[in-house]
Amino acid sequence: MKPFMDQDFLLNTEVAKTLYHQYAAKMPIIDYHCHLNPKEIYENKPFENLSKVWLGGDHYKWRLMRANGVDEAFITGNKPDFEKFYKYAEVMPYLLGNPLYHWSHLELKRFFGIDTLLSPKTAKTIYDEANLKLKTLTPKKFIEMSNVKVVCTTDDPTDDLIWHEKLKAEQNPFKVLPAFRPDKAINIELSWFNGWVDQLSSKVGYAIDSIELLEQALNERMDYFDAHGCKLSDHGLDSIYYHPYEVEEIETIFKRARSNIKLSQLEVETYKGYMLIFLGKSYHKRGWVQQYHIGALRNNSRRMLETLGPDTGYDAINDDLIAKPLSHILDALDHHDELPKTIIYALNPRDHDVVVTLMQAFQDGKIPGKLQCGSAWWFNDTIDGMSKQMDALANNGLLSRFVGMLTDSRSFLSYPRHEYFRRLLCDKIGRLVEDGLFPYDLDVLGRIVEDISYNNAHKYFKM
Amino acid sequence: MKPFMDQDFLLNTEVAKTLYHQYAAKMPIIDYHCHLNPKEIYENKPFENLSKVWLGGDHYKWRLMRANGVDEAFITGNKPDFEKFYKYAEVMPYLLGNPLYHWSHLELKRFFGIDTLLSPKTAKTIYDEANLKLKTLTPKKFIEMSNVKVVCTTDDPTDDLIWHEKLKAEQNPFKVLPAFRPDKAINIELSWFNGWVDQLSSKVGYAIDSIELLEQALNERMDYFDAHGCKLSDHGLDSIYYHPYEVEEIETIFKRARSNIKLSQLEVETYKGYMLIFLGKSYHKRGWVQQYHIGALRNNSRRMLETLGPDTGYDAINDDLIAKPLSHILDALDHHDELPKTIIYALNPRDHDVVVTLMQAFQDGKIPGKLQCGSAWWFNDTIDGMSKQMDALANNGLLSRFVGMLTDSRSFLSYPRHEYFRRLLCDKIGRLVEDGLFPYDLDVLGRIVEDISYNNAHKYFKM
Amino acid sequence: MKPFMDQDFLLNTEVAKTLYHQYAAKMPIIDYHCHLNPKEIYENKPFENLSKVWLGGDHYKWRLMRANGVDEAFITGNKPDFEKFYKYAEVMPYLLGNPLYHWSHLELKRFFGIDTLLSPKTAKTIYDEANLKLKTLTPKKFIEMSNVKVVCTTDDPTDDLIWHEKLKAEQNPFKVLPAFRPDKAINIELSWFNGWVDQLSSKVGYAIDSIELLEQALNERMDYFDAHGCKLSDHGLDSIYYHPYEVEEIETIFKRARSNIKLSQLEVETYKGYMLIFLGKSYHKRGWVQQYHIGALRNNSRRMLETLGPDTGYDAINDDLIAKPLSHILDALDHHDELPKTIIYALNPRDHDVVVTLMQAFQDGKIPGKLQCGSAWWFNDTIDGMSKQMDALANNGLLSRFVGMLTDSRSFLSYPRHEYFRRLLCDKIGRLVEDGLFPYDLDVLGRIVEDISYNNAHKYFKM
Repeated sequence: MKPFMDQDFLLNTEVAKTLYHQYAAKMPIIDYHCHLNPKEIYENKPFENLSKVWLGGDHYKWRLMRANGVDEAFITGNKPDFEKFYKYAEVMPYLLGNPLYHWSHLELKRFFGIDTLLSPKTAKTIYDEANLKLKTLTPKKFIEMSNVKVVCTTDDPTDDLIWHEKLKAEQNPFKVLPAFRPDKAINIELSWFNGWVDQLSSKVGYAIDSIELLEQALNERMDYFDAHGCKLSDHGLDSIYYHPYEVEEIETIFKRARSNIKLSQLEVETYKGYMLIFLGKSYHKRGWVQQYHIGALRNNSRRMLETLGPDTGYDAINDDLIAKPLSHILDALDHHDELPKTIIYALNPRDHDVVVTLMQAFQDGKIPGKLQCGSAWWFNDTIDGMSKQMDALANNGLLSRFVGMLTDSRSFLSYPRHEYFRRLLCDKIGRLVEDGLFPYDLDVLGRIVEDISYNNAHKYFKM
Repeated sequence: MKPFMDQDFLLNTEVAKTLYHQYAAKMPIIDYHCHLNPKEIYENKPFENLSKVWLGGDHYKWRLMRANGVDEAFITGNKPDFEKFYKYAEVMPYLLGNPLYHWSHLELKRFFGIDTLLSPKTAKTIYDEANLKLKTLTPKKFIEMSNVKVVCTTDDPTDDLIWHEKLKAEQNPFKVLPAFRPDKAINIELSWFNGWVDQLSSKVGYAIDSIELLEQALNERMDYFDAHGCKLSDHGLDSIYYHPYEVEEIETIFKRARSNIKLSQLEVETYKGYMLIFLGKSYHKRGWVQQYHIGALRNNSRRMLETLGPDTGYDAINDDLIAKPLSHILDALDHHDELPKTIIYALNPRDHDVVVTLMQAFQDGKIPGKLQCGSAWWFNDTIDGMSKQMDALANNGLLSRFVGMLTDSRSFLSYPRHEYFRRLLCDKIGRLVEDGLFPYDLDVLGRIVEDISYNNAHKYFKM
Repeated sequence: MKPFMDQDFLLNTEVAKTLYHQYAAKMPIIDYHCHLNPKEIYENKPFENLSKVWLGGDHYKWRLMRANGVDEAFITGNKPDFEKFYKYAEVMPYLLGNPLYHWSHLELKRFFGIDTLLSPKTAKTIYDEANLKLKTLTPKKFIEMSNVKVVCTTDDPTDDLIWHEKLKAEQNPFKVLPAFRPDKAINIELSWFNGWVDQLSSKVGYAIDSIELLEQALNERMDYFDAHGCKLSDHGLDSIYYHPYEVEEIETIFKRARSNIKLSQLEVETYKGYMLIFLGKSYHKRGWVQQYHIGALRNNSRRMLETLGPDTGYDAINDDLIAKPLSHILDALDHHDELPKTIIYALNPRDHDVVVTLMQAFQDGKIPGKLQCGSAWWFNDTIDGMSKQMDALANNGLLSRFVGMLTDSRSFLSYPRHEYFRRLLCDKIGRLVEDGLFPYDLDVLGRIVEDISYNNAHKYFKM
């Protein structure tokens, strides 16, 4: 029996152990997509207690606390912090088979040096010990401890990026770069669209009453982001759409939206496809990478959306069909060779094979791994999920060109997910070798592991 | 090499063996969803021969006999019983990799003490031996031998439940409770809808000419079922629909149906969504559990439907999209906190991830595991299928809160499927522990195994 | 550690080794679906060099060269042959986890006796050695070396099959039979439809201005193919459609198409369903097998389609829903017992469960394995992909009745894929036995392996 989570956690062959300990472990991290708040990094305030830093905002934990019958008062309510922590400790033994069991213990181990299993019995001791350590821990400290070289945040086009500027002016051993997330420019059907266009308008200093002016404003903001070191954009495409259009139609749709006229579903979808294509071309001009996050079904419980707002644990995996619209969007960009480097993340794991085979139809022989199947995202961020994503990639693509892991997290304690990923990667490669499916050549294998851990991302994003 | 199906069948680690033999094996069974006939249980008649009890009505076996080229005369036709049995014995060696190979031998072993492999060579001996044993075996005996504490049947709202009443009046070591299956109230497009409403009408003693009266009648029947110990309902939702509606529209649709006017597809779907919501609220009031069986594509061969009727082996897995309508239905119930405990079974295994992530968006922190991803259903009732369902649940939910297995069967000999499930569960947990992915703590592990085998269902259904 | 690709490649248990070496390896091959050119077989010209025979036309290799950043000049361009080969050698170490790594080495080993790993370092030596061997190797030699008994090509209904005739007149140790692929008769929406009907018209010698005459012409061509030994047809159904129709509607649609009137999507789909049903009945009359290849999304990059044409590596997996239309088509044929033997290949692996369960609804007890779930196709032609297809088949059908592997290839060097498949099959069966899930009985197991390797196809196709 392997001990629980020892130094060879997830490493089941000698090859895997060698690859992880000699090659993967030492590589720095480029966390090229996350939801950290740059202001919090800059201000670098210590956290009040373990409950605040660990449970506050972590909707992965919240969901399973609810599933275990924990009252909302102990989750997002106003119960004392230790009581909330204790409730989570009660859930721990029920997490058999769930990655939170691993993440929780890895985080306690790596940041707090705590090796004790968390359970109701140990909750108080662990809480006290961690709180003691927290006095010397800050956001920057978490980042440094994790050997992170680059953090890419997620920012609205109207953001002035002052925290990024301030961070740049400091001498930090890591960069914090913005990423351009223009969802609000795309989601024309949402109630806040016009308010957001007005906000953009005041940012650029002119009225935005045509699609041309919207594009001009977005271009100015892309230039601004670019000047602040932005190298990639991000799109939350709960569904992906494409319909043929004439530019005049888009103009009409935009003007109708600006006049608060309710759009038809077809108009909404046509506009969205158009904007993705406009933005893709703009990224291509700047040498940016674009990211498509496809397939979330958000805010399923209206009751809880009304109570707690979005991003509080009420999302799910959608099952819309994606092959044809995704093909059309990529083709529209590729047609005149304006397709930027693109990372496609499918939330529904049944879409990996579609994504991997489709992206290979747009590799152009100029940039290795120009199109990427993004690392297992959100609900797939499990041993099974990461494994399936890598299998799909290896079966119909080049695993060795993969830009690898990212945290996609709101928490400063999530970096051990990179370790989790790297261990699994080494295990997967170790098995191939042990099973006689790939030759045992450490020069080749070690390089591949180092590449997927760090070098591929380093070359791909050019940060 | 492991011997075929010895006492450690499916148990591949020492932990798994301990968990199964010391914890799982002894637990009783709550078979909370099956298609047994309560009249047959009550009458408790012995079976004429092995062919009758084992092949009569078992469309799992029929399908594969047909696939193996067995003429229908030996399946549903009038060939002598032993010849039918012999034909099945001929199929046996071809069942490599199919669960029927295991189920068949488990059933021969557990109920008849027969350890011989079934094949044409052994068919006669086995047939004779089993027939001898059958003289002392009856429906009740099968249930008792299997340590079953509760059997939930599947009953039409118009059923008078007399057999349940008679069974209740007896001193049996097990309960037989009804479950409410109002498919006929929902499937408004089917030719028998009006006939069924008339039948309901004569049951309640008043004309049903408005949706309000339909609901009143259904409520009366739910009260009647409730008084007979009913704790759960069941829905066969080959597809799931939701469209926004006004109550007046539903009234119109219902009246059109009652006047034999052909409904549009949209009308049918709108009505179905409405009825699911009405019924869900009604279950919630009574503290019942509702079950959604989603994704069957039934009666694919019209020729055989015309010849043999439904449930004769001509069904398949559908691939309709389910995320959005299922989200809307659950949200409509949740909105005013009227969502009952709900078990969702997806027949298409590619839907497990959608179901598990979506159900977590409606866990309300009041009942542990309030929403459940139902055990691998029908065509998924295989080692792979059960394994995938449990993986999906563990990855994004709490496997430890799972209410576990049910037979969903028409046969008195299906209880060893609970054993099959429990062995697989213990094997899965054993692997996690042996691989260092969960600590070896028999107090925790043993409790989880006992919970999933029995305690969780016991608490959840409150029978 | 298992050595890379030794004699026990892919065989992980003693049972698997016995099954492969004693039963599978010796069986001949029926390659019942491929895209070889019968003219090239007949002419039997040697190949200029390894680059030409190995890289020319192999879009599997092309895709991954592009993904690795290889310029098109070295793929389909006019760079010298050795330089192209060298570029592929550079890609080799990046193919970790991809089946091309195995196929490439298997092909070098089986046809050229080369055991060296291909990499930039060994590229020149291997190239020279293979080129030397190529002087004695020809298309027929490749076929004979591979113990192939039957090759079925893929032929347009208008083909005069002269190369098949010439080959038949020779004394070859293998047969080359045509297969009927009437995609052009079905794809009424494509620009070349009318041109093709005119070509068919000149072949049969009368104008084709009604659906009746189209059917007459197709029947004549089927008779012609039948007289040339054709035993099966093939359909590339990127999507599958069915809508109810009256024959008059089909007549109208056909006439509109013949008059170059643009058809609606509904008209196109209705026509396609109709033609599939007409053709299915026609195959049934002749005792042919029909093949449905469902789910490709082709020519995604217009830019590259314009540059290189189709079948150059720009295809992907589609995600259209298939259950209902496929059910309707099969049912329409089955209704009056006119469903021919049918092999259904799903390109999207998430459809295997739908296909396997649906096909069982049409097994008629007359022909063992009358409906087949086709071997892992194209992008699924990987260890994972083949494994999943066999699992789906075993779980809900009879793996033992499977007609097994085919190359579906344009290359004379693809036959080792049969070896790859057989090794995996034996490994899968070996594991079942070693794990105690099926008894160790070599008479049964050896027969099943021989059947799936050869005998099942031999009986099924009656060639």
